[in-house]
Amino acid sequence: MSIYLHDIPLSTAQDHLRTSLEEVGLWRVLGSETIPLDENALGRVLSEPIWASISSPHYHASAMDGFAVIAENTSGAGPSTPLTFPIEAESAHYVDTGDPLPEWANAVIPIENVESLDENNNITPNIQKPASIRIRAAVAPWSHIRPLGEDIVATQLVLSSGHTLRPVDLGAIAASGHQSIQVARKPKVAILPTGTELVPIGSELKSGDILEYNSLVLAAQIKTMGGDPTRYPIIKDDFDLICQRVMEAAQTHDLILLNAGSSAGMEDFSAKVVEKLGTLLVHGVAVRPGHPVILGLVNRTSESQLPITNYQIPIVGVPGYPVSAALTNEIFVEPLMAKWLGRRPLELPTEEAKLTRKITSPAGDDDFVRVAAGMVGGTLLAAPLSRGAGVITSLVQADGLAVLPSGVQGLEAGSKVQIRLYRTKSELERTIFCIGSHDLVIDLMAQFLTESDRRLISANVGSQGGLISVKRGEAHMAGTHLLDPETGEYNISYIRRFVPDVHVKLVTLAGREQGLAVRRGNPKTVRDLNDLTRPDVQFINRQRGSGTRVLLDYHLNQLGISSDSIHGYYQEEYTHLGVAAAVASGRATCGLVIAAAAQALDLDFIPLFQERYDLVFPQEYANSQLLAPLFDLLAAPRFRVAISKLAGYDTTQTGNIVLND
Amino acid sequence: MSIYLHDIPLSTAQDHLRTSLEEVGLWRVLGSETIPLDENALGRVLSEPIWASISSPHYHASAMDGFAVIAENTSGAGPSTPLTFPIEAESAHYVDTGDPLPEWANAVIPIENVESLDENNNITPNIQKPASIRIRAAVAPWSHIRPLGEDIVATQLVLSSGHTLRPVDLGAIAASGHQSIQVARKPKVAILPTGTELVPIGSELKSGDILEYNSLVLAAQIKTMGGDPTRYPIIKDDFDLICQRVMEAAQTHDLILLNAGSSAGMEDFSAKVVEKLGTLLVHGVAVRPGHPVILGLVNRTSESQLPITNYQIPIVGVPGYPVSAALTNEIFVEPLMAKWLGRRPLELPTEEAKLTRKITSPAGDDDFVRVAAGMVGGTLLAAPLSRGAGVITSLVQADGLAVLPSGVQGLEAGSKVQIRLYRTKSELERTIFCIGSHDLVIDLMAQFLTESDRRLISANVGSQGGLISVKRGEAHMAGTHLLDPETGEYNISYIRRFVPDVHVKLVTLAGREQGLAVRRGNPKTVRDLNDLTRPDVQFINRQRGSGTRVLLDYHLNQLGISSDSIHGYYQEEYTHLGVAAAVASGRATCGLVIAAAAQALDLDFIPLFQERYDLVFPQEYANSQLLAPLFDLLAAPRFRVAISKLAGYDTTQTGNIVLND
Repeated sequence: MSIYLHDIPLSTAQDHLRTSLEEVGLWRVLGSETIPLDENALGRVLSEPIWASISSPHYHASAMDGFAVIAENTSGAGPSTPLTFPIEAESAHYVDTGDPLPEWANAVIPIENVESLDENNNITPNIQKPASIRIRAAVAPWSHIRPLGEDIVATQLVLSSGHTLRPVDLGAIAASGHQSIQVARKPKVAILPTGTELVPIGSELKSGDILEYNSLVLAAQIKTMGGDPTRYPIIKDDFDLICQRVMEAAQTHDLILLNAGSSAGMEDFSAKVVEKLGTLLVHGVAVRPGHPVILGLVNRTSESQLPITNYQIPIVGVPGYPVSAALTNEIFVEPLMAKWLGRRPLELPTEEAKLTRKITSPAGDDDFVRVAAGMVGGTLLAAPLSRGAGVITSLVQADGLAVLPSGVQGLEAGSKVQIRLYRTKSELERTIFCIGSHDLVIDLMAQFLTESDRRLISANVGSQGGLISVKRGEAHMAGTHLLDPETGEYNISYIRRFVPDVHVKLVTLAGREQGLAVRRGNPKTVRDLNDLTRPDVQFINRQRGSGTRVLLDYHLNQLGISSDSIHGYYQEEYTHLGVAAAVASGRATCGLVIAAAAQALDLDFIPLFQERYDLVFPQEYANSQLLAPLFDLLAAPRFRVAISKLAGYDTTQTGNIVLND
Repeated sequence: MSIYLHDIPLSTAQDHLRTSLEEVGLWRVLGSETIPLDENALGRVLSEPIWASISSPHYHASAMDGFAVIAENTSGAGPSTPLTFPIEAESAHYVDTGDPLPEWANAVIPIENVESLDENNNITPNIQKPASIRIRAAVAPWSHIRPLGEDIVATQLVLSSGHTLRPVDLGAIAASGHQSIQVARKPKVAILPTGTELVPIGSELKSGDILEYNSLVLAAQIKTMGGDPTRYPIIKDDFDLICQRVMEAAQTHDLILLNAGSSAGMEDFSAKVVEKLGTLLVHGVAVRPGHPVILGLVNRTSESQLPITNYQIPIVGVPGYPVSAALTNEIFVEPLMAKWLGRRPLELPTEEAKLTRKITSPAGDDDFVRVAAGMVGGTLLAAPLSRGAGVITSLVQADGLAVLPSGVQGLEAGSKVQIRLYRTKSELERTIFCIGSHDLVIDLMAQFLTESDRRLISANVGSQGGLISVKRGEAHMAGTHLLDPETGEYNISYIRRFVPDVHVKLVTLAGREQGLAVRRGNPKTVRDLNDLTRPDVQFINRQRGSGTRVLLDYHLNQLGISSDSIHGYYQEEYTHLGVAAAVASGRATCGLVIAAAAQALDLDFIPLFQERYDLVFPQEYANSQLLAPLFDLLAAPRFRVAISKLAGYDTTQTGNIVLND
């Protein structure tokens, strides 16, 4: 068994799959079926063009409620020279909108343009059934008529094949005389999750159990692509069992997604399964995330139950990490589904954005980096999200994908990068881009702001990082809680130092308590910062530049404690919850966090300091439409109530303007 | 009964509906329900935020296949100073990716970075179960580990309420410990088609019958918006019957769409139905198309079967013309559905485009004009489509909507206009914009080009109109068949005259026969152009500037026939099929068309002339990537075969380059 996968370039792998499918006659529309023309046809792809079998309208129809007349007979009618027409054939006839024109007529006079007369030539209120009508203007031939074929002429092309049906298309197909349509058959895709460590969604978890939700994401993606997914139950890591299930699935499906086991570990059977049951085409692609992808063909043991005559169908070994799994499906399966359905591949709009942080990328890989995105001062900014293939929230939060082609080893902060956008321009324009220190109240604010049609994105880079972003014009606001060791005042001196040239407004978000989080019952009896130097105490720190780190250093300095004497001082986490999680898991004895973070993870909390958390706004954004709902929120009692429900928060100063220059 | 509707401004009508719904407590999320977390949750809207109930990973997990070790013990290992660890607790332990880290370990060394040794300290191929491992580099603490909470920390906000679920969201919800979710209940919408003249899709049609497909389009739109539509059978124009059905529907639905009967004709009962069963809020809105819309509330007779405690529900009287119906649904119902589901209203991207033709618009109306759109020479062009409210194909062909707010009475050709785009930028960039004379082969070409990922749009303005568009730089190509009466040559002299400054390529598309279309059996025995002056012969002409009109005038001139002596000379149609349809319907005795148009509508054809139909390309586009597949097609035998299947076409000159300057 080889440990190292043979990584081939992405485009080579895609070509190899396409060529192999061409050879077995599967690089084409899979098949078509006739379905009734009803609302379930929505989203289906036409496999035949629609040619009109009837015209619409199929007769000359009145376009108005009014009277059908012979246009030539109206000539000479004028304001002072009215003409009168009795209601009878070859003279005048009442028609509703849509009624057929009498054979002898060639124009319609709208009802509001006639005087309705009774038998005595007096005006009558019975406007639709008068004895005669009087007109004071002539009409041109074919006025107020929808001629036969105005909308559709029999035999014309109404829709091309390959078109994905929208609501109005269904109407046009009906109008052109059809009551059923030929559409591409939905490809049937089997999704087989494998892994002894996997447990179904909702299971009680023990250490080592992994929730199996990749099959859910893959199935939902297949549905979105226009396919018909089947989720199989979890299969344990047993080579023969996996082979058996794959063979079963091959009989009734067009494609198999075999999830996990695609790498080269002890229990990674996928490649061997494909080799045994068919042809292994590709094992390992130079794409990140998604390296250990497998592409192959599996044989059918007898003629399939599906209406195609192929004895081989494609199989994709999908990597196990959720981000890799989802991207592998987008990269390799979406184009195949498009081909099988005869539609265009899905395509994301691409825009140029400015990177807020440096990205490193391995040479030789096509690298897909998830980014959060927003418009700040007319520039589209892209903030790289977590690179971890296991971090599915990075896909949830992603507003786009930056694609670094193989050959690009990385990009500096401030570089231009092409991003494939998941969001519309207007969504990006409604985005408040917040960079700086993390706080739970920012999350709370994000939730409230959705009501006002704003999206609040927060990239957590610490208080100083936030101020630097403000200086660079790369944020609408920054959260900061930087204590000045000399003045004992928060934030102001740092703003003077880091953003001297930007006019800013500084507003207090909340006061909050910082203290040490320890496990329930405080097993190591930590009391204050002096205990951090004890050999049996393992500390977990926040990153350099964060306000909490500054606060810690200030107090260590006051107490004369050297950072080198603290075990774990250089172990860094980037959020309060990250620190709390490290304590909860036993990775550390304690860490300095806000009370809410300790409470969230069911830890004990030793309160030590009170601090002020402020928001910095460049003046150009402080008065913008974009941020107006945020300022409304800062003044709203219901928001204060919501904050005060979080442990350790004080809202007495919330909304106070500290600086306005 | 009033004939004239009271038209109020669109925004006033929308406000009135919203205020009235606020008063009855219906301007809010309708309700929520718990559904299982599976692929059917796709597209549903969260009615509660998702807070993580567990962390992910919920333990420290190995990020690689390798050996768990204590990082501190590896210090000092180097290329020439290897360290060896026996496989035992507190030393080294094999872990697969995703396995929990042993309590005593704090780092993982990837399998490819160790030497596996047997009992005798020799290298063994049993890499996962060696007796000991040897390493030649130290590892830092927490290397190759996914710490608890790397993806999700328990209590964090994973998704906000109001979020519409995508595939990856389902994974994140599962990962955060949920197996069911709270989503907004789908609004139940009853769609009631009314009209004695209506017949179901697929009916055999007689004059005056109207195919009922509005309910299909409305239902499909409601589905797209996230609602649950019910299509009722056609109700004839009977006031009491309509009242009864509306009352029935109100018991089990949240909204009623009462289609047609919303105007003020004799059988337009909708307003009276709403007045009888509840409150008429609005009748007539200054919007085009869609004027006669009705907004109201209807009472429920007893407590509803739906889990809301309202005794009034909204009703929309939807106009009968299909374009009006579809747009009314988008304008009035979509925002309501968004509110009821708690999601954002759907929103189209807006771009500025240049109008290719003048638009006139009634003062005082918000006017929605369907346009075809494409990028030509870096400019987004918008070509207005048919304005007819009955022309559903204008919605099918629409690439966008130009919105002329009330106050704007019209716009000149060349004006800038904001359009709401139905297509992505990339689709518009793949669009070949063809303006000029109409020909069936252009439709055929459009169908073929979809295979090469090109969209061919043709705006039919006649041959001269096409040359003017080429001159203005507003077309990638133009179809032309202009005979020079002096030289007897086609197109060249017109190009010299109309586009003297543009370098063009002129390529022959096909030769085609022109002649007179007459009804089957030629009942009036028309033989040639001399018969057009007969008093019993009604002619139908093509518009000025069209090649067919030039051809006719040339031959009339040769024959010394005056245009004034021909009945119907000034009756114009804009396409060959339009002329044929006029003959088929009896509106005209004969018209000059190509053979294919006569054949399409089952008419007899009297061949008179042979003409050449060419395509003009500005040189800058002739060699573009965009048009390459079109030139390939002109050379492809299969395309010639397809053309020659159309009656009266000759492909011997197809693809010939006539001019290349």
